[in-house]
Amino acid sequence: MSNLLIQNISQIATPKPGVYRGSELRGLNIYENAAIYISEGSIKAVGALSEVLEKVEGHPVILDAEGKAAVPGFVDSHSHLVFGGNRADEFAMRSAGMSYEEIAEQGGGIVSTVEATRNASKEELKNLGRIRLQKALRQGITTMEIKSGYGLDLETERKMLEVINELKEEQPIELTATFLGAHAVPKNSSREEYLEEVLTMIPEIAELAEYCDVFCEKGYFSVEETRKVLEKGMEYDLKPKLHTNQFNDIGGVEMAIGLGAVSVDHLEVLSEEDIQRLARSETVATILPGVSYFLNIPYSPARKLLDKGALVALATDFNPGSSMTISVQLLMSMACTKMGMSVEEALCCATQNGAKALEKEKLGCIAAGYQADILLLDSDNYKDLAYFFGENHVHTVIKKGEKVWESRG
Amino acid sequence: MSNLLIQNISQIATPKPGVYRGSELRGLNIYENAAIYISEGSIKAVGALSEVLEKVEGHPVILDAEGKAAVPGFVDSHSHLVFGGNRADEFAMRSAGMSYEEIAEQGGGIVSTVEATRNASKEELKNLGRIRLQKALRQGITTMEIKSGYGLDLETERKMLEVINELKEEQPIELTATFLGAHAVPKNSSREEYLEEVLTMIPEIAELAEYCDVFCEKGYFSVEETRKVLEKGMEYDLKPKLHTNQFNDIGGVEMAIGLGAVSVDHLEVLSEEDIQRLARSETVATILPGVSYFLNIPYSPARKLLDKGALVALATDFNPGSSMTISVQLLMSMACTKMGMSVEEALCCATQNGAKALEKEKLGCIAAGYQADILLLDSDNYKDLAYFFGENHVHTVIKKGEKVWESRG
Ligand SMILES: [Zn+2]
Ligand SMILES: [Zn+2]
Repeated sequence: MSNLLIQNISQIATPKPGVYRGSELRGLNIYENAAIYISEGSIKAVGALSEVLEKVEGHPVILDAEGKAAVPGFVDSHSHLVFGGNRADEFAMRSAGMSYEEIAEQGGGIVSTVEATRNASKEELKNLGRIRLQKALRQGITTMEIKSGYGLDLETERKMLEVINELKEEQPIELTATFLGAHAVPKNSSREEYLEEVLTMIPEIAELAEYCDVFCEKGYFSVEETRKVLEKGMEYDLKPKLHTNQFNDIGGVEMAIGLGAVSVDHLEVLSEEDIQRLARSETVATILPGVSYFLNIPYSPARKLLDKGALVALATDFNPGSSMTISVQLLMSMACTKMGMSVEEALCCATQNGAKALEKEKLGCIAAGYQADILLLDSDNYKDLAYFFGENHVHTVIKKGEKVWESRG
Repeated sequence: MSNLLIQNISQIATPKPGVYRGSELRGLNIYENAAIYISEGSIKAVGALSEVLEKVEGHPVILDAEGKAAVPGFVDSHSHLVFGGNRADEFAMRSAGMSYEEIAEQGGGIVSTVEATRNASKEELKNLGRIRLQKALRQGITTMEIKSGYGLDLETERKMLEVINELKEEQPIELTATFLGAHAVPKNSSREEYLEEVLTMIPEIAELAEYCDVFCEKGYFSVEETRKVLEKGMEYDLKPKLHTNQFNDIGGVEMAIGLGAVSVDHLEVLSEEDIQRLARSETVATILPGVSYFLNIPYSPARKLLDKGALVALATDFNPGSSMTISVQLLMSMACTKMGMSVEEALCCATQNGAKALEKEKLGCIAAGYQADILLLDSDNYKDLAYFFGENHVHTVIKKGEKVWESRG
């Protein structure tokens, strides 16, 4: 691993190191006409070229940014990137006015993804994942969480987690696996039966995942059922995360905070009390505006969460049924345009705060001592990320100090 | 100009030739495992390889689509792509909660774009335009209308139109210029004074444009003022187009149809009577969902327009103040997700119907006799254009039978 000196950066825009909440998120660290020195995959110095040069040892590779802006690589802390099949045809049916019932009759909905994921060989799943990860990389995602949850049986849940773990080794995006066996109840099973099955899966897959997640929602898993799964996961060192408050508030947030969950995700329907609870907790509130856009449901009250001082992260929820997007940049646009967030907050929530939601210290920030995950933009102004929407502004992706992708026009 | 044979196309999806309205927009022509033969920039044959081969003469260049889907190039019939300056900072101020008044005090708003455009040299403007056109091309736009309207004085309006005309000659996107002198009233001028000025500009710039456009809206130009400008334009062979019904319905649609306007654009606020009028007319209703997204105003009633049988086109309105996007693909997503359009209709409105709004016959369709403007997608299913949002699915752009852009990973 060689040393790298990036010079002629028009503007470095980064969260302040270790600042995760409150009004400080509105003030980034900004360096104009700056340079970054990287050694052994870590950032050693950031600032004016003359100052940075003082830290340089040996003969680093020089990367001329030619006036591009730089931001930290995006950390997408919530995705379902590994799945079989394609639901574009279902989307088209929905857009043509077909009802959910009619689509379900035609074999659509999550059931179709579960079936396609079960039927896919490991190699097929891995191949689909590989293609999607390449798209994610081009869009500037350098770290990503991926959940299981389209198997709903031990064999397929394990297959999904194995795929995530194998993809981790073969491509540049840093991956974290989450077990989401309790994503839905499979056909031909009762909730009670399937809940027991999930509990028995946990010891079997614990080695393959870092987190345990549940869809806590009316018609899916109740607060008490969710708690059982999360506690069982904790016994096996799987830390809790949660899908909750997407359509209904059934008390998932309070329970999750009580368990010390790393994050609670969705939160489209959120009470003032839960906002206060989150503000006082170390649990990250992960918001997923792609879902609100795609399903036409309310956006999470991100402005309130931020104003009260909660930890907020911005993630894709990339999945075929409710958020078919891998563009963190578009989510930043939505955060600003639909949720009242400032561009600075949107950037912090998509980088350092995403890293917080994955418990990755020293990630998501451009500062000495941090891992060198850096994007060079096809613009001299990082604000274009949120302003100039529908566009991919990423020109160069650097992961752990290595250039891993570059646009070629 | 050599002949070109594109083979191994997984799926060709195209509007039916000459079908612009009504329920037929819901049924595309679809060819699976197909080929296209192009000669002299025109499509000569479309269909199964064996049939297409019968039409081939000589030794065409072979392009292996390797299973990609193909659609017509996008025709963006409404944009303001040539402008000076950058309003990303203003967007960030707005997102941080600053009011329009405060932003105006800081020199923001359209005034800042007018000033930057006046101050830019022709070369500077052309350079900015060139960069943006390259982005448009990558996103699959092969034909585009661009308006003046950030000069608000003869000299700068002419400069903008000259820039558009010169850009037309030097890059692959087919451009049409529209004179929009009556875009706003410049500082230090009264509406009456400026209206007179616009009328005197028309003979001066008529050679440089094909259309004449006016912002017909409360606080901008009244219906009668608009009519004066459009009629003067018609005297000089500039056909009428119109910005109308964005915030208020002041009667622009009826007046425009009376004049035989080629299109009326925006239509976020539209009466049932005007929908009926449009349905009975040859005037294209051009909808601009990027504006609704960006400004949080209502979306145009596209579903109703389509159901009643109006001619509908989908365009970017790419501009720095109210629609900073060049992604027709994202607009197709919005059309389906926010406006109740089917994927098929969205594709028709962004291709052949856009061409209709620019009076370009034989454009926007993949059929024998049409100009060979074709996109190959990084997908085997054209529905991904609207479904998998925030992503650029364009892999290869073919304009008049020539490959003019290709993604390289
Ligand atoms: Zn999810
Ligand atoms: Zn416009």
